[in-house]
Amino acid sequence: MLESLPTPCLVIDGRKMQANIASMATHLAQHNVALRPHLKTCKNIEIAQTMIDPRSGGATVSTLAEADYFFDHGINDLLYAVGVAPGKLAAVSERMTRGMNLTLVLDHPQTARAVAKARAESGCRYRVLLEIDCDGQRAGFKPESAELLEAAEILADADCDVAGVMVHAGGSYLCRTTRCIQEMAIHERTSAVLAAERLRTAGHPAEVVSIGSTPTATFGENFEGVSEVRAGVHVFQDLVMAGLEVCRIDDIALSVLTEVIGHRSSQGQLVVDAGWMALSRDRGRAPSAPDRGYGLVCEPDSSAPGDDELIVHGANQEHGLISHASGKPIDPDRYPIGTRLRILPNHACATAAQHPGYWLLDDEKTEPQWLARCAGW
Amino acid sequence: MLESLPTPCLVIDGRKMQANIASMATHLAQHNVALRPHLKTCKNIEIAQTMIDPRSGGATVSTLAEADYFFDHGINDLLYAVGVAPGKLAAVSERMTRGMNLTLVLDHPQTARAVAKARAESGCRYRVLLEIDCDGQRAGFKPESAELLEAAEILADADCDVAGVMVHAGGSYLCRTTRCIQEMAIHERTSAVLAAERLRTAGHPAEVVSIGSTPTATFGENFEGVSEVRAGVHVFQDLVMAGLEVCRIDDIALSVLTEVIGHRSSQGQLVVDAGWMALSRDRGRAPSAPDRGYGLVCEPDSSAPGDDELIVHGANQEHGLISHASGKPIDPDRYPIGTRLRILPNHACATAAQHPGYWLLDDEKTEPQWLARCAGW
Repeated sequence: MLESLPTPCLVIDGRKMQANIASMATHLAQHNVALRPHLKTCKNIEIAQTMIDPRSGGATVSTLAEADYFFDHGINDLLYAVGVAPGKLAAVSERMTRGMNLTLVLDHPQTARAVAKARAESGCRYRVLLEIDCDGQRAGFKPESAELLEAAEILADADCDVAGVMVHAGGSYLCRTTRCIQEMAIHERTSAVLAAERLRTAGHPAEVVSIGSTPTATFGENFEGVSEVRAGVHVFQDLVMAGLEVCRIDDIALSVLTEVIGHRSSQGQLVVDAGWMALSRDRGRAPSAPDRGYGLVCEPDSSAPGDDELIVHGANQEHGLISHASGKPIDPDRYPIGTRLRILPNHACATAAQHPGYWLLDDEKTEPQWLARCAGW
Repeated sequence: MLESLPTPCLVIDGRKMQANIASMATHLAQHNVALRPHLKTCKNIEIAQTMIDPRSGGATVSTLAEADYFFDHGINDLLYAVGVAPGKLAAVSERMTRGMNLTLVLDHPQTARAVAKARAESGCRYRVLLEIDCDGQRAGFKPESAELLEAAEILADADCDVAGVMVHAGGSYLCRTTRCIQEMAIHERTSAVLAAERLRTAGHPAEVVSIGSTPTATFGENFEGVSEVRAGVHVFQDLVMAGLEVCRIDDIALSVLTEVIGHRSSQGQLVVDAGWMALSRDRGRAPSAPDRGYGLVCEPDSSAPGDDELIVHGANQEHGLISHASGKPIDPDRYPIGTRLRILPNHACATAAQHPGYWLLDDEKTEPQWLARCAGW
């Protein structure tokens, strides 16, 4: 099947993807907490439909373009999980008027004031989660801060819906051990629950307690007080997730199909037609994981790497350079010009974002199915 | 004008872009050598039309998708400047049958044999440039190698057109001095001329001697024996080019427009709505240039950086983190939530590739014009 596809392209191993989706769903169902999958990784409706928790039906997006695409395909309950820019509020109002059930996120009293002002102007009753910072990595109110209550007050005074809190333990990507991720998960949950309780004590509804990252969702054991968990990259998994032991390398469902176009005989290297345009420039490895350059190469006609690792050590726009991780020269006779290889991505979100869509391979007998991605903002 | 655009988005300063295009055109015209612009940077027809040399009319592309897009918009003479994968020859034949004047590149006798075989099967008379390696950086025959003549012989025996040679001095990106780039330019030219002469001596036409990279095209002073020069990133310029002194920072015509969505007050940092999805993960700085993270931030309502540099030091998918390069905290009152900023890219090709198109600003009085990009393979 792979011989007929145009290279470079993204290939999904359908069985691995379904196993990844099922594994996360089972884990969260066992803890009786809803999954609100983050669709920024897949950006595709067919995949999204298999990820969405049938008990809740909601999803998470990272752009208004994703919100539009999934709304047009029938998903209505959407959390836009990036602090809203005041300049986007008119676009948000327009979508709410069209019937989109869009929840916003913010983490500053200035943004709350911008939302309150837009409420008065547009008549839209915005539904807002207050973002909470649990690890100092990116954004959010400190759970114990005065600004949290100040922002909630501004929103409530303007008759906006202070629906709850959202936290993302992005720091879990920096962990070297599973124990570290478990501690991050505890801190993520307790930060969110504390902030929500403070809001409720101050008289706000705050029924939503939304937490998540794929590592903390995977290793979290206590979801008390949590109403939903967000995870997204688990759908494909990647080398960063394998480096965190969130998955095995064999679980990675996404790869870039490429073809050998040259031999650098004097260096013992191969040239392939997948450069950074197809692989992305993401080098994001987990702190304890080996450096696989721009990706780990699978053996010909296989979705598994060999014992002696081949990696993409260099990348130009449309050229990838492949060498042995050990430094020993590659035998060019083993990889003639025209050989097809699959490359496992460092970061599935970044690699997938370089492509207009995927070829889904369900089994060896079925024709690959094209799945398009949405893009832009 | 910038207040009305949806963020994040790409903005082109039209006057700077036209000055960049004119500067390269003037330099090469003075040396009486044709420009075959590389369109992998802009991927847009309106911009391509202003880059193309009216004396020759040809262009360079890096994917068949670019070839299709530009052919559909009236550009017929196209050099596909990535070693052709045997698996793409059927697609090439199909395009030639539709009237596309597509020139291929290869650098291995195995590929020449694949082209010869396809010639017999499809009936298409492929036009081929043999790629020459001048710096050991990526691909190409050594100019003095036996394999160069072997590949040419295989092609000629199959009645393919051995049209000439192509070389790209990618090593010029690693230079620390202009003198180094000038030496790279000399080596690029002499390697190409030597290889072409060897082909002619062996009885092949080899009328094309195609050289180029934006740095060597800019600083090259001798183009004797060269039939065309390829350059592409000069259209926008970027921080890598500024680091090589190919341009000034003030010449950079491309930026990412973003909005402040948060303050990390305890760290003295800003959060903006341009993450790696909008900026790319490209960190590619020139060897002698300072590290600007994921990009250099311009002052509000300006396309120029301030004296005290702000850089994007961190990036998640849709979040950028901005700090002072000096480490001193940013005064949040100077950048309220909702402030719009422009970010100059490290690598224009990579940043532009993250976006569906550009907003072209010609002057303050004209509405921004949307220019779409082609994408995929």
